[in-house]
Amino acid sequence: MQGEGRLDVNGGTKWSRLLTTDSPLPSSSSSSNLEHVDNDIGDIGEAGNMGMESLDYEVVESLAYREDQAQRGMWRHVSYITLKWTFSLLIGVGTGLSAFFINISVENFSGWKFAATFAVMRHSYILGFLLYVLFNGALVFSSVYIVTQFAPAAAGSGIPEIKAYLNGIDTPGILLFRTLVGKILGSIGSVGGGLALGKEGPLVHTGACIASVLGQGGSTNYNVKWRWLRRFKNDRDRRDLVTCGCAAGVAAAFRSPVGGVLFALEEVTSWWRSQLLWRVFFTSAVVAVVVRTAMRWCGNGNCGHFGSGGFIIWDISGGQDDYSFYELLPMAMLGAIGGLLGALFNQLTIFLSSWRRNVLHKKGNRVKIMEACLVSLITSVLSFGLPLMTKCTPCPNPEKYPDVVCPRPSGQYGNYVNFNCHSESHYNDLATIFFNTQDDAIRNLFSTNTPREYNSYTLITFLVTFFLLALVTYGTAVPSGQFVPGIMIGATYGRLVGILVVNASNRDSVDEGTYALLGAASFLGGSMRMTVSLCVIMVEITNNLKLLPLIMLVLLISKAVGDAFNAGFYEEQVQLRGLPVLDSRPKRFMRNMSAKYTIGTKKVIQFSRISKVGHIVSVLRSNNHNGFPVIDWLHNGETVVIGLILRSYLIVLLQAKADFQLTPIPGDTRGRITFRYDVRDFAKPVSSKGVSIHDINISPAEMEMYIDLEPFVNPTPYIVPEDMSLTKVYNLFRQLGLRHICVVPRPSRVLGVITRQDLLPEVLEERAMVEEAISSRGRYEAPPYEEL
Amino acid sequence: MQGEGRLDVNGGTKWSRLLTTDSPLPSSSSSSNLEHVDNDIGDIGEAGNMGMESLDYEVVESLAYREDQAQRGMWRHVSYITLKWTFSLLIGVGTGLSAFFINISVENFSGWKFAATFAVMRHSYILGFLLYVLFNGALVFSSVYIVTQFAPAAAGSGIPEIKAYLNGIDTPGILLFRTLVGKILGSIGSVGGGLALGKEGPLVHTGACIASVLGQGGSTNYNVKWRWLRRFKNDRDRRDLVTCGCAAGVAAAFRSPVGGVLFALEEVTSWWRSQLLWRVFFTSAVVAVVVRTAMRWCGNGNCGHFGSGGFIIWDISGGQDDYSFYELLPMAMLGAIGGLLGALFNQLTIFLSSWRRNVLHKKGNRVKIMEACLVSLITSVLSFGLPLMTKCTPCPNPEKYPDVVCPRPSGQYGNYVNFNCHSESHYNDLATIFFNTQDDAIRNLFSTNTPREYNSYTLITFLVTFFLLALVTYGTAVPSGQFVPGIMIGATYGRLVGILVVNASNRDSVDEGTYALLGAASFLGGSMRMTVSLCVIMVEITNNLKLLPLIMLVLLISKAVGDAFNAGFYEEQVQLRGLPVLDSRPKRFMRNMSAKYTIGTKKVIQFSRISKVGHIVSVLRSNNHNGFPVIDWLHNGETVVIGLILRSYLIVLLQAKADFQLTPIPGDTRGRITFRYDVRDFAKPVSSKGVSIHDINISPAEMEMYIDLEPFVNPTPYIVPEDMSLTKVYNLFRQLGLRHICVVPRPSRVLGVITRQDLLPEVLEERAMVEEAISSRGRYEAPPYEEL
Repeated sequence: MQGEGRLDVNGGTKWSRLLTTDSPLPSSSSSSNLEHVDNDIGDIGEAGNMGMESLDYEVVESLAYREDQAQRGMWRHVSYITLKWTFSLLIGVGTGLSAFFINISVENFSGWKFAATFAVMRHSYILGFLLYVLFNGALVFSSVYIVTQFAPAAAGSGIPEIKAYLNGIDTPGILLFRTLVGKILGSIGSVGGGLALGKEGPLVHTGACIASVLGQGGSTNYNVKWRWLRRFKNDRDRRDLVTCGCAAGVAAAFRSPVGGVLFALEEVTSWWRSQLLWRVFFTSAVVAVVVRTAMRWCGNGNCGHFGSGGFIIWDISGGQDDYSFYELLPMAMLGAIGGLLGALFNQLTIFLSSWRRNVLHKKGNRVKIMEACLVSLITSVLSFGLPLMTKCTPCPNPEKYPDVVCPRPSGQYGNYVNFNCHSESHYNDLATIFFNTQDDAIRNLFSTNTPREYNSYTLITFLVTFFLLALVTYGTAVPSGQFVPGIMIGATYGRLVGILVVNASNRDSVDEGTYALLGAASFLGGSMRMTVSLCVIMVEITNNLKLLPLIMLVLLISKAVGDAFNAGFYEEQVQLRGLPVLDSRPKRFMRNMSAKYTIGTKKVIQFSRISKVGHIVSVLRSNNHNGFPVIDWLHNGETVVIGLILRSYLIVLLQAKADFQLTPIPGDTRGRITFRYDVRDFAKPVSSKGVSIHDINISPAEMEMYIDLEPFVNPTPYIVPEDMSLTKVYNLFRQLGLRHICVVPRPSRVLGVITRQDLLPEVLEERAMVEEAISSRGRYEAPPYEEL
Repeated sequence: MQGEGRLDVNGGTKWSRLLTTDSPLPSSSSSSNLEHVDNDIGDIGEAGNMGMESLDYEVVESLAYREDQAQRGMWRHVSYITLKWTFSLLIGVGTGLSAFFINISVENFSGWKFAATFAVMRHSYILGFLLYVLFNGALVFSSVYIVTQFAPAAAGSGIPEIKAYLNGIDTPGILLFRTLVGKILGSIGSVGGGLALGKEGPLVHTGACIASVLGQGGSTNYNVKWRWLRRFKNDRDRRDLVTCGCAAGVAAAFRSPVGGVLFALEEVTSWWRSQLLWRVFFTSAVVAVVVRTAMRWCGNGNCGHFGSGGFIIWDISGGQDDYSFYELLPMAMLGAIGGLLGALFNQLTIFLSSWRRNVLHKKGNRVKIMEACLVSLITSVLSFGLPLMTKCTPCPNPEKYPDVVCPRPSGQYGNYVNFNCHSESHYNDLATIFFNTQDDAIRNLFSTNTPREYNSYTLITFLVTFFLLALVTYGTAVPSGQFVPGIMIGATYGRLVGILVVNASNRDSVDEGTYALLGAASFLGGSMRMTVSLCVIMVEITNNLKLLPLIMLVLLISKAVGDAFNAGFYEEQVQLRGLPVLDSRPKRFMRNMSAKYTIGTKKVIQFSRISKVGHIVSVLRSNNHNGFPVIDWLHNGETVVIGLILRSYLIVLLQAKADFQLTPIPGDTRGRITFRYDVRDFAKPVSSKGVSIHDINISPAEMEMYIDLEPFVNPTPYIVPEDMSLTKVYNLFRQLGLRHICVVPRPSRVLGVITRQDLLPEVLEERAMVEEAISSRGRYEAPPYEEL
C-alpha cells in the first residue's frame, strides 16, 4: 500500500521526468583522454587494451549483502576463520612443494647437462659445445613455447603485476591456474637452460597464483570448483590470501621465512593489518617446514643431482665477522657502486623493455620465441667460449689451505672447476663462476677463506658480460627473476673490491667472500631499493647474523644513491606496464587542487531508483563507467541520492531478468532478493573480464520493462564535499582501498560530530544495552531516505 | 564591497537569528555518561581525571595552513627532509647512549654489590646479608623516590602509553623531558636493586621520550627550545618520530635492529607507511653502530664491572640446531605451557594492577615508596635465603667438560657460582640463577653443553618464587619491563622440560640450553602475543638462525593457546588504564549500527561564521567538545556548513583578541592573518594540557564584540551520510587517524564520481598543464560556498 500511495502523490510526474532527463549520453563523451571517464584505468596508455580492472576492497553494503550477513551465525563465522587458516596452511604447503619441484627439476636438468658436456668434452670440444648449446636451447625453447602459447601472463617476473593487484588493479590472466602451471614449467626451462635470470621472482608469482586459485575454489576454466570455497569470492579476502602467497614465495625461494614476511610487507602490499602479519607469518613457517622436510628426504639420495643443494643457502658463517674502522670506506664505496650500477641497470631495462613492448613483441609469438632462443644461444656461447679463452690457475697450496678441494672431482659440484686445464692441479677461475649453475656460482663467489681464487681480469670480464646478459635476458618471454642475477653481479664487483682491500691491507682478517656478500646486497639495494626485507633475506641466506650492521650500512648507501637517479626496479616496471598503482602518499601539488577539479564540467551519469531496462542498457553501452549514482525523489519533489550501483551488479540483473517488472512501482523489496541472488553471484572472477553488456540479449519487450535498483545499490558510498583538497581525497581513497568516491555539494547542516569516544566498542555496547530495553529506534535498517 | 553588499541583502535577519538560535546550551547536557559529549575521551572511567587528549593526525586545512603551505618553497621542503633524517640520527644516537648509560650503571652497581657481599660473607653471613639488603633497598628507594616525586609518568613499562599515543591518545606527562630523566635514573635503581623486572620496556619509553623531546625542540618547562625545530610541532610528524624512538629502544635493549623495526611495526604503531620503514630502519642501524662502538670502548677496560657484558646477547650458537621428529612433541608442549602460564600471568597482573590503581596507590606517594621498599626486601631475602638453604652440587667432571670453569673464580662473572659451598669444587645451582644479575642468570640458564647443571627441584623452586616475585613487582611505582622476567620464567621451565627430554631420550644431541631458549620464547609469546618481532628478537639475541623454525613453532602454539584466554599483556594494560585505543578492526556488531545511532537525539553545538565573543566563551565553558561545526547563510537564506573549528583554535583566538571586531561584518580576511598567526601557534604542546577556557580573561566590552571564524575553520572535515554503517565510519576514522567526523544528511545530488584514474598524478599533471593555458578555473582557492 505504501508504494502505491507514494506513486499516487508524485508518481506520474516523477517517472516521466526521469525517463526524459536520463536519456543516454552521446557516446562521444568517452573519447578524449582527459575527460572524466570512469572506466577506472582504461585510458592509461596501453592499459585499456589489456583490459585491467580495478578491484573493490570496500564492502558493498547492499540489501543483498546485509541479508547475507544477517544469516551468518556463529557457525558460519567459525567455519570462515577455519577456512582462512586452512588456506594459509595449504598455500604454505603448495608453495613449498612448488619451490621444491622447481629446484629439483632445475638441479637435475643442470646436472645432466654439465655431466654430459664434461663427458663429451673429453673426446671433442666441438661436440661438447654443441651438446651444451642444444641442451640449453631445448630447455629455453620449451619454456618460451609454453609461455607464449599457453600462459602469456607467466612471462617476466610477475612481481610488478602482483604489486598492482595488491594495490587494487587486476591484470587479466595474472592469477589463473594456467599461469601457475606456465610459471612453474617455464621457470624450470629458463633457469635450467642457463639464462641469466633467477627463479625467485617467479616463485613469488607462483605463491600468489596458488593463493588465488585456492581462494577461488579451483579454476573456473577447468571446472574444478567447490561451492563452499566460494566464501572467499570477494576482493578483500583474496587480497589477504595473495599477500600470504607472496610471502610464501619468498620464504620458499630463499628459505627465509622472516624475509618473506617482510618482503610482502615492504615491497608488494599496499594495505596491511597486524592480524594479517600473524597469518602471513604462519604461512611462511609452514613453507620452512615443508622445504626442510623435503630436503631431508632428498638427503637420502632420492633426488638425483639435487643432493648438493639447489635451495639457495650460501652459508658464509666462516667469513669475516669483525671489521676495522678503515674498512668502512671500501664498504661505503661498495654501497655507492651498488647504487650507481643498480640505477644504471634499472634505466637500461626501462629502455629495453619499452622497446620490446612497443616494437619487438608486437610482431607476434614467433618473434618472441626466436628472441629467447637467440638469447640462449648467445649465453651458451659466452659461458662456454669465454672460459675456454681463460688461462688456468694453479690450485692453492694444499698445506696452507687444507680444506680446499682443488680441482673439484669430475662430475661433482663444488668450487675450483677444472675446465680446459691441461694439468690436474689447475682450475679455471672463469669457468668456476660462468660454466656452472647459478647457485653454485654464487656459492663460489661467496666462498670464504679462498683468497685470490679469482683473478681481477676474470672478475671484470665476468661482470661486464653477465651485466649485459642479464640486461638482454630480462624481458624475453620467459619467467625471469632479478634476484639471482643481481646477486651475481654484485658479488662479482664485491669480490673485486675485496681483492683491492686485501692487497691494500695485507691483513688475514679481510675476507673476499664477505665483500662479495656486501656487494650483492649493495646491487640489490641499488636496483630494487628494498631495505629491511632485503637485509633480513641476506642475513637468512648467508646464515650470519654478525654481518647485519654491515649489510645495513651498505643498503642505506646504495638505496640513497640509487634513489637520486630513478625509482626502484619494480616501480619502474609497474609504470612501464601502465599499471595505475597509487602510491601511499599523495603528490605535493594535489594540495592545491580540489575534488571538484577532477570532475571538471562533465555531467554525472546516474540512474533513478526505478529505471527502464532499455535505458540501463543504452547507458551501459554508451560509456564504460563502473559506478553510477542512483537517485530517488522525495515527497516534496526534491532529489536524494540513495546510493551507488556497480556496473557488474547491473549486468547480473540484466542477465538474470528476474527483477524486471511491468510497471514503475517501487515495491517493498526487502527479503525478496534473498532467494534469488546470493551475494557471491555479484562477485567478479579474478583475473578475467566479467560478462560484457554487449553479450547480453534482451528482447524489445523486456527493454520496455522496469527494474527497481534499490536492493542492489551500495547505500552509503564514501562521500566528500566538492572543495575538499585532493590530498585528503587521495588519502581517503588510498587508505581505504576504494574504487569510487562520490563528490557532493557542501552540506547544508551537520547532524552531529563523531569522535573517538563514540566509536569505542564498550561505549557502544553499553549504550545498546540501555536502549534495547527502551526501543529499537536508530538501529540500522533499510536506507531511511523515505523519512527524510 | 562584496561583504557589505551581502550584509545588505540578508544581514539583519541573519545575524539576529544566529544570536538567538545559538544560545548556550544548558550545562547539564554533559552530565550523563551516554550522551554525545565530544570531549573525545573524557568519560571513559578514570581517563577523564587523567586529562588525556586525542591527537589530530588530520591536517587542518585552514586558511592559515594554506598560506603557510604557499610560502613553503623548495628550500623549506629540503630543510624539512634534512631535519627529519637528522632527527632520526639523533634519536638513534641518543637512545643508544641512554641504553649504554643504563647498562653500564646497572652492571657497575650490581658488580659492587655482589663483590662487597661476597667479601663480607667470608667473615659473617649476617653482615653480608644486611649489606645485600641495604644495597638493594637503597637503589630501589632512590628509584621509587625519583619516580614518585619527580616523574610519576615514568612508572611502569611505558609501552601501553606509547601504544596509546601512536593510536591517537596523549596521556599527560608521558613524553616529557622529566619523564625521560626519571625513566633512565629509575631504571638504573630498580634493575640495579635486583627487582624482578627488566630494563627493556623502559628503554622503549626512553627512546620515545627522546624522540618527542627532540621533535618539540627541547623542553618547554626548562626553556630549552629552538624556533627552527618547531617545524615538527604537529601530531603527525611527532607520531613518526616517536615510532622511530620505539624501534630504537628495542634495538638498543636487545641489540636487535631488525627486531626493533618489527616491534615498532607489530606491537606499538597504529599507522604505518613504507617510507617510515626506511627511516625507522635507519634509526635502528644507528643504534646498532653506537652500541657497538661504545662496547668496544668498554672492551679496553674503561667501564669498571661492565667488561663482561650487560647488553643482553646470549650467544647460544653452540647449542642444538637439529632436532628429531619426536622432539616436536615436547617443543609443542613448551608452547602450550607458555600459552597457559602467560595467560595466567596476564590475568593475575590485571587483578593486581587494578587493585593497586583503585586502592593502594590512591593512598599517596608514601605508600608507593613503602610498597617498593617492601618488595625489594622480600626479593633480597628470597634471593639470598633460598640459595642458602640449597645443597651444593659437585662440579662436572673436568675431563668430560674441559670448557667448564667450575666454580667461577671469586669476584668474576660466569656460571657455577660458589655460594655457601664448603668445598672448592662445588657450586650452588640456585645461587647461579638467583644470586646473580639477571643477564648473567639468563646466560647461565641458556648455557649450552652443561647438562644436568640444575637440579629439577632447584628449577621448580626458582620458577615458583620468581613467577610470584615478577607478579608482585610489576605495578610498583618504578620503571619496569616484562621482557627479562618473562625470559627468566620461560627459560626455567624450558630447562625443566629439557631435563625431561634428556632423561627420556639419553641422546647427546638434546641440549637443555636450547629448550631453555624455546621456553623463554613460549612464555613471551604466551604473555605478550607478539609473533614476528619476538621471533626475530629471540634469533638476534641468541645469534642462532637455525633455531628460527623451532621458535616459530613454539610461538605459534603459545600465542594461540594464550589468545584462548585473554588479550596480550600490553592490550590488557592499555584497557586497565582506560586508554581508549581503537583497534584496527571494527567489532562485528557495528555492522548493524548506523552513524546516526552514535549521535542519538542530541542537538549539535555549532557556531555561525560571525559569532559574538561572549557567545563563544559561554559555549566553550558550557561543554567540553573539541570540534564545532561552523555554518553560514547563503543569499537565499539556506544554511551551508563552512567547516569545523577546533576548541584549541578558538582559545588561541580568544587569547590573542586580535581578530575581535566591533560589527558583524564578514571582511575579506585572506592574507591578513598571515602576519598575526603562525600555523604552529595553533599546535598543542605534547603531553600536557593546553590553555583552558577558564584561564582566559575577557572584559565585558570585548564580550560584546564579534569574530569572523572563517579563516580558522577546517573547511573540509571528512563527512559521512547519517545512515552509513558504523563499520565504515570506524574504518574511515581509524585508517586516517581522525579526531572528528561530521555526520550529514543524505546528499541530494552527486556532482561526480572520483575513481582511481582521477587520482593518478600523471593524469592530473597533464590535465593541469592543458588547463593552465586556458584558465585557472576550478583550482583550489577559498571555500567557494558563496557561489553555490
